[in-house]
Amino acid sequence: MIAENYKEMLNAKSVIRELFQYATDRGQEIGYENVFDYSLGNPSVPVPQKFTDVMMELLQTREPVALHGYSPTLGIPQVREKIAASLAKRFSIPYTMDEIFMTSGAAGAIAHALRAVSVPGDEILTFAPFFPEYNPYVNLTGAILKVVPPQPKDFQIHFEAFEEMINEKTAAILINSPNNPSGIVYSRETIAHLAEILRAKSAEYGHDIYLISDEPYREIVFEGVESPCISQYYENSIMCYSFSKSLSLPGERIGYVAVNPACKDAKTIIQMCGQISRGIGHNCPSSIIQLAVAEVLDETADLSVYETNMNLIYNELIALGFTCVKPGGTFYIFPKALEEDAKIFSEKAKQYDLMLVPGDTFGCPGYFRMSYCIDTEKVKRSLTALRRFVEECYPKR
Amino acid sequence: MIAENYKEMLNAKSVIRELFQYATDRGQEIGYENVFDYSLGNPSVPVPQKFTDVMMELLQTREPVALHGYSPTLGIPQVREKIAASLAKRFSIPYTMDEIFMTSGAAGAIAHALRAVSVPGDEILTFAPFFPEYNPYVNLTGAILKVVPPQPKDFQIHFEAFEEMINEKTAAILINSPNNPSGIVYSRETIAHLAEILRAKSAEYGHDIYLISDEPYREIVFEGVESPCISQYYENSIMCYSFSKSLSLPGERIGYVAVNPACKDAKTIIQMCGQISRGIGHNCPSSIIQLAVAEVLDETADLSVYETNMNLIYNELIALGFTCVKPGGTFYIFPKALEEDAKIFSEKAKQYDLMLVPGDTFGCPGYFRMSYCIDTEKVKRSLTALRRFVEECYPKR
Repeated sequence: MIAENYKEMLNAKSVIRELFQYATDRGQEIGYENVFDYSLGNPSVPVPQKFTDVMMELLQTREPVALHGYSPTLGIPQVREKIAASLAKRFSIPYTMDEIFMTSGAAGAIAHALRAVSVPGDEILTFAPFFPEYNPYVNLTGAILKVVPPQPKDFQIHFEAFEEMINEKTAAILINSPNNPSGIVYSRETIAHLAEILRAKSAEYGHDIYLISDEPYREIVFEGVESPCISQYYENSIMCYSFSKSLSLPGERIGYVAVNPACKDAKTIIQMCGQISRGIGHNCPSSIIQLAVAEVLDETADLSVYETNMNLIYNELIALGFTCVKPGGTFYIFPKALEEDAKIFSEKAKQYDLMLVPGDTFGCPGYFRMSYCIDTEKVKRSLTALRRFVEECYPKR
Repeated sequence: MIAENYKEMLNAKSVIRELFQYATDRGQEIGYENVFDYSLGNPSVPVPQKFTDVMMELLQTREPVALHGYSPTLGIPQVREKIAASLAKRFSIPYTMDEIFMTSGAAGAIAHALRAVSVPGDEILTFAPFFPEYNPYVNLTGAILKVVPPQPKDFQIHFEAFEEMINEKTAAILINSPNNPSGIVYSRETIAHLAEILRAKSAEYGHDIYLISDEPYREIVFEGVESPCISQYYENSIMCYSFSKSLSLPGERIGYVAVNPACKDAKTIIQMCGQISRGIGHNCPSSIIQLAVAEVLDETADLSVYETNMNLIYNELIALGFTCVKPGGTFYIFPKALEEDAKIFSEKAKQYDLMLVPGDTFGCPGYFRMSYCIDTEKVKRSLTALRRFVEECYPKR
């Protein structure tokens, strides 16, 4: 018999995917260059040339049986060593390869981290607005995702609500900063206060509460903004990293789990990830991709376009009278809609060929997300459409 | 708190890995060329040159944002189409891309297939001798692996034992032919009789019983042997394929699930695999690897060395008086040990620098596995050691 729970999931449609499909269909009609598609979060800048050069060199010079051979369960040792060294240097934390586990992107990293520090029935807390894939990521492990309501003033953590929701069943907190969909970056104060609460609650409940950080946007941080490293603030912390956005290679599925060396079970957790892999069929990212990424660890694609786009959009939104927290990073912005129901707002925007994702799907009704990983030239043209949309649909403001 | 079940798994040592480690350490002492390491099943021949050429061409000619962009959840459509066309042509079964789901090798394929057709508490039956990773593969889904005892005469299926063990809780049968560790290939008669029983039992229990076939060795079949395609015999069948062995690229993690088009839920199961992925963090194999493999679907590495090695070893084993079923494919052979306890037999063989894996780990005590994916020249030298081992340790036979 086929498994009904997965079958039922087929009926739940993704708002983002549907909007993207609409944009694609509309593009067939009027030309995709005329569709202002802010629906999807796909990098729009190329991978650094050095990555391509390293791939070519590996293919030309390495003995194929070794190059394409099995990676050890935890990842290729020299790759894990290089990642540890890069993190150690950058964050002044003594990472070694024993705290690094190679994964198929951040999704793979979170799948392992969650299973390592929770059991079915445990609760995992996250903060709205949040990436909606956290629902299946968490709930399909058997643990239960609980969403702390947002703090719309600045989209930092709503600590009062958080303290009401944390309880003895809480196994881990899952955060995402720089954040999809809000673009905000948690401040030092936010992380420090979160760590303080987690320490107190761990002591009160008599078990460690883990802090799992989903960090695909770690490198996309704008001028004057600082993105604090959670491992500098809290011992029982696990970073789930992906190279998808920093290097613009989301299709190559490469990332890692890095457990804080200060966590007393750090090395055990990494070893456990190898066991978890056996159950979920992972067995490491591609060997050649691991080897190539290891040579460009401290590089990024040219990410400056995202800040250029953000400034253009943010300034226009403010000029048009939107309420909007200025993003500190990512390629997302999350303004308040001009009417209570963001779904209706988003529907009206489609008439102007503007694809805006209603915030309901991110646990934050009344807001909408724009993914501005598109050409700056197109951003500029879209602002005219945005102005027309606002002036015609919301004239009395 | 860390998850105790995964932590406990760290205490269970892999016999195969330990033997490989011993071989590596011994190699440091006497030179690895003098260690007759039959422990691991790693391909020993290079990937076809065309794969490397296609990879280079993709890197040189494709626009990087598209080349390294997200693969759709089910895999890149043109890759799925090409695989379907190749299977359709080869097996005269009308596969379309709607029956194909791209995975990270056979391990990933099995992880999805098991979750699609069973729920926790269900039973999955497999046949000894069997690949020991089926234990974590199955048991960590929440289903229960039950092992049908072997039929040592020819290592085809022990149908009497099977019919005693199949029951209302049986959700699926997991087979592996050509087989690791025995090297045998299930005959047409075996598959046809298995299909007949499954149809009768599905009717009796009032639910479909699925046949899941783990087929990484599909292309490694020796002269005069035919490997029947399960989809020609049984409707509710799912093939889990890997390119690891046929193309010699186990580290690149690429394979697929192919559901029989004759299965009434085929398209639903493929769609469900996309949902299952969200829970286990898969999100497709590497994009560039998918695109490259699609160009060499009907090629293989030069697999002839495995048959050469098999014949050398088989003939020597028979000459030395071993009981052994002649392999029909793979790069494994599974003779009966010369004393009751294969672990003691294997331990003695180490004195002759022969690494032989005791059959206990494959659910078949009293036998041992040799993985002959090594240079033929080394195989020849190893036979002298084998003869000495047998003559000195088992002189009275």
